[in-house]
Amino acid sequence: MRKNFFNPPETYVDVLLAGTHLFPRMKKFFDATESLKKRLGSEVVRTDAEACFAASFDNTKLSFLPEAVIFPRDESDVETVLREANKNGVPVCVRGAGTGTTAAAAPVCGGWVISFAEWTQLEIDADAGTATVQPGVVTQKINDAAAAHGLFYPPDPASVKHCTIGGNIATNAGGLHAAKYGVTRDYVLALEGFLPTGEKVRWGGAVKKYVSGYNLRDLWIGSEGMLGVITRATLRLVPRPETKHTFLCAFADDASALRAAQDLSRERIVPSVCEFLDTVSVDCAERYSGKKFFEKTSAVLLVEVDGDAESVPAQAERVRAWARSRATAFRETSDAEEAESLWEVRRICSQSMFLLADSKLNEDVAVPAKNFVPLLEAMRNVTGETGLATPIFGHAADGNLHVHVMFHRDNEQERQAAQVAIRRVMETVVALDGVITGEHGIGLAKSPFLAIQHSSAEIAAMLAVKKALDPNDILGRGKMFTPFNVWDCVPVDVKLPWDKKKVAR
Amino acid sequence: MRKNFFNPPETYVDVLLAGTHLFPRMKKFFDATESLKKRLGSEVVRTDAEACFAASFDNTKLSFLPEAVIFPRDESDVETVLREANKNGVPVCVRGAGTGTTAAAAPVCGGWVISFAEWTQLEIDADAGTATVQPGVVTQKINDAAAAHGLFYPPDPASVKHCTIGGNIATNAGGLHAAKYGVTRDYVLALEGFLPTGEKVRWGGAVKKYVSGYNLRDLWIGSEGMLGVITRATLRLVPRPETKHTFLCAFADDASALRAAQDLSRERIVPSVCEFLDTVSVDCAERYSGKKFFEKTSAVLLVEVDGDAESVPAQAERVRAWARSRATAFRETSDAEEAESLWEVRRICSQSMFLLADSKLNEDVAVPAKNFVPLLEAMRNVTGETGLATPIFGHAADGNLHVHVMFHRDNEQERQAAQVAIRRVMETVVALDGVITGEHGIGLAKSPFLAIQHSSAEIAAMLAVKKALDPNDILGRGKMFTPFNVWDCVPVDVKLPWDKKKVAR
Repeated sequence: MRKNFFNPPETYVDVLLAGTHLFPRMKKFFDATESLKKRLGSEVVRTDAEACFAASFDNTKLSFLPEAVIFPRDESDVETVLREANKNGVPVCVRGAGTGTTAAAAPVCGGWVISFAEWTQLEIDADAGTATVQPGVVTQKINDAAAAHGLFYPPDPASVKHCTIGGNIATNAGGLHAAKYGVTRDYVLALEGFLPTGEKVRWGGAVKKYVSGYNLRDLWIGSEGMLGVITRATLRLVPRPETKHTFLCAFADDASALRAAQDLSRERIVPSVCEFLDTVSVDCAERYSGKKFFEKTSAVLLVEVDGDAESVPAQAERVRAWARSRATAFRETSDAEEAESLWEVRRICSQSMFLLADSKLNEDVAVPAKNFVPLLEAMRNVTGETGLATPIFGHAADGNLHVHVMFHRDNEQERQAAQVAIRRVMETVVALDGVITGEHGIGLAKSPFLAIQHSSAEIAAMLAVKKALDPNDILGRGKMFTPFNVWDCVPVDVKLPWDKKKVAR
Repeated sequence: MRKNFFNPPETYVDVLLAGTHLFPRMKKFFDATESLKKRLGSEVVRTDAEACFAASFDNTKLSFLPEAVIFPRDESDVETVLREANKNGVPVCVRGAGTGTTAAAAPVCGGWVISFAEWTQLEIDADAGTATVQPGVVTQKINDAAAAHGLFYPPDPASVKHCTIGGNIATNAGGLHAAKYGVTRDYVLALEGFLPTGEKVRWGGAVKKYVSGYNLRDLWIGSEGMLGVITRATLRLVPRPETKHTFLCAFADDASALRAAQDLSRERIVPSVCEFLDTVSVDCAERYSGKKFFEKTSAVLLVEVDGDAESVPAQAERVRAWARSRATAFRETSDAEEAESLWEVRRICSQSMFLLADSKLNEDVAVPAKNFVPLLEAMRNVTGETGLATPIFGHAADGNLHVHVMFHRDNEQERQAAQVAIRRVMETVVALDGVITGEHGIGLAKSPFLAIQHSSAEIAAMLAVKKALDPNDILGRGKMFTPFNVWDCVPVDVKLPWDKKKVAR
């Protein structure tokens, strides 16, 4: 199961954990790295085992050792790294906090990792309502800084307290507020950085309308670090909503809850949040917390409306009417502290799922609202077929229902079943006119399914663009287009800052 | 001044007007056209003078005759045209209603024009809040159809009653509502169509979150028909605002009005409309209409807030307070009919400008709000230097202030001065961290200025992408990247459906 390409050399042995992979190393990579280190110094170009190991994986914990981790001091260092990489054919990955869930930042082909973790400049232009950020700024900090000026940066991936804006832009990160506020793409005005070949460029500007030339800004967004290196972004901020009102609603069954979510759109209600949790998810959360959220354990929708003080009560009244005619029970509040108690079931459901099994595949699929119930039914069939629990919870207002496949990693039969289940999920989602990834991206984890989503002409066009901008295949080599079997790898056993305590099975 | 590449053949003579250009025709183009006509029929492939002339220009009236105009019956026809074009090296332009203002749809290198004017299917999915449209649907019709379901399609270029959605997507059209509602890009969920080489593709899907593969959807948007042919789009709609409130405010001078517009953003007021008209524009409108909009002729801001019935009065109160402390006078209303009278000055200012001269260059530049006044001052300097009037009116809330250069076409000195003025405008805008085009695009008209906006590395990257997707340079050949001197051409003297009566000088 563990597949090491190469026996790790002595120096790495003390930090290598089971499952760390090392790409076959070539002499020219060694030489290029030594030369780069001479040029930029050993504080910028780190080849020690500790630094290399720390940069070898993301949240998937699939570990691939790089030759070096580069901590650039300035843009000139970034340019040098890219030019040398092109000269020597060394692959380069770009890295922020490593919260990604597809191994898009992991150096699967070795080479160099550029770490922007220390590039944390953040400036708010309160008059213009913009933020100018370096890629290493933690997303939550943007929102905190904006709040001080009555402004709001809405995209909020689950990892918002840890992830960095560079990674958010590279994956076009979403979050809970997308149905009303959109995703990362909707807030990026301008990007500065480097082409894969090392030329400095800027796409877009600090204006809301910009149609000069081809839109390479949006091509970069979501390209998972494979088409350019972002060194600075200008983000649009919006006025902070004055107030909000929160509802937690219980439904007779999962399908009723999903149909009710669809009805919100039908009734032209635009919630800032509409989170669905199926009965299995709620059951786990109840067992984990020892609390009952409603008398009867049942699927729930967590619905929030926000806006100005005049508008929110009226919006809440419409949600109340909607809930009265559909929910079996509901609670509501406009008090922030009380709202936190309504949020609890949503906040703990993810970790509580480990009550079902020790391993979880979280698939961020999205389907049109009309196909919510068909997706649910398909997932119940997958459970029937494989015996694995497939709890669903996620962002119902924007169709991005996360489907989870739970299995025991040491149980070979369940591992096999999980592989069957995941492929079934992807095929189902595409058949239901949806997308295999709504906010995580492809990276390595979803690379086997790219051809389910896209035709060969579409993939050929993407590859042609890649080759045009990155003729030496420097950035993110081996990602997205080369099917990678994650089941051949064992995640390394490390605890990351955002890891929550797992519950006993 | 008039530069015909080639003497037109007999058949064209009766429709050719002064200024129509014909690209040097090659035998292989003739042969390819004949062959295509045999294959698809003469109703699909029209080579008659009338059809060719009608497709030879857009709103700029710079006329370039194609070999044929193709009215495809279905997608298979589109595929055939593109495959044959690639086989024979024939350039292809795609055309909707021809309202473009940069000659992006004009066949400057001859060849074939695909007309989608008859592709007008439009379906609203009221539950999902989406519209699925063919490229020839007139933009206003989308909004009308959406309104019947309580929905709203916000992008509204000035040509909204005539322009087609295909062209809107190709140019990423903006409009009056962009500051609050965004531009065309913000409403496109999915695009279907053909690569320049003839393969059918689909980018994005009918979901709000979609991050699978590279984002070629947004690369197509705004690429002016040069990277693909759009045959179908799925658009996002939003709930229709229930009500609105309109203000027309007069200011002591142009700079005060622009500073007041900037203050809206500072005070976190998000108007749905904020149109600036400088004193010259208002003066023209008053002379044109014979009305006085305020006691003293002065710069104005037309400000509108919209939303639900509870929120609009509170928003209006904030605008009122803002107006009281800044405007010299203002009028306001929440009555739709009365609002129309406040809008009058804005609606007539464009045609009334011909009081100043018979020719107008409308430059859709955008700058950050902090540079509104410096832009104004720079334009006043241009007037001082060239003697030409440079009235400014446009979308202050999103920075897209249209700068106009007025001149008499038959006055050689003024023509020369206008050329100087336009280059000065472009240089100024870029120096003020703005963009040379906020919503019109590059086409032919702005091609000489592309290198003012973008570095050679940026342009090289765009060209690399173009070559990757369109190796035979089929779509929009000769546009955007080849500097074209529009001053070498005389517009043809035709009246288009949207042409307003010009006033006497």
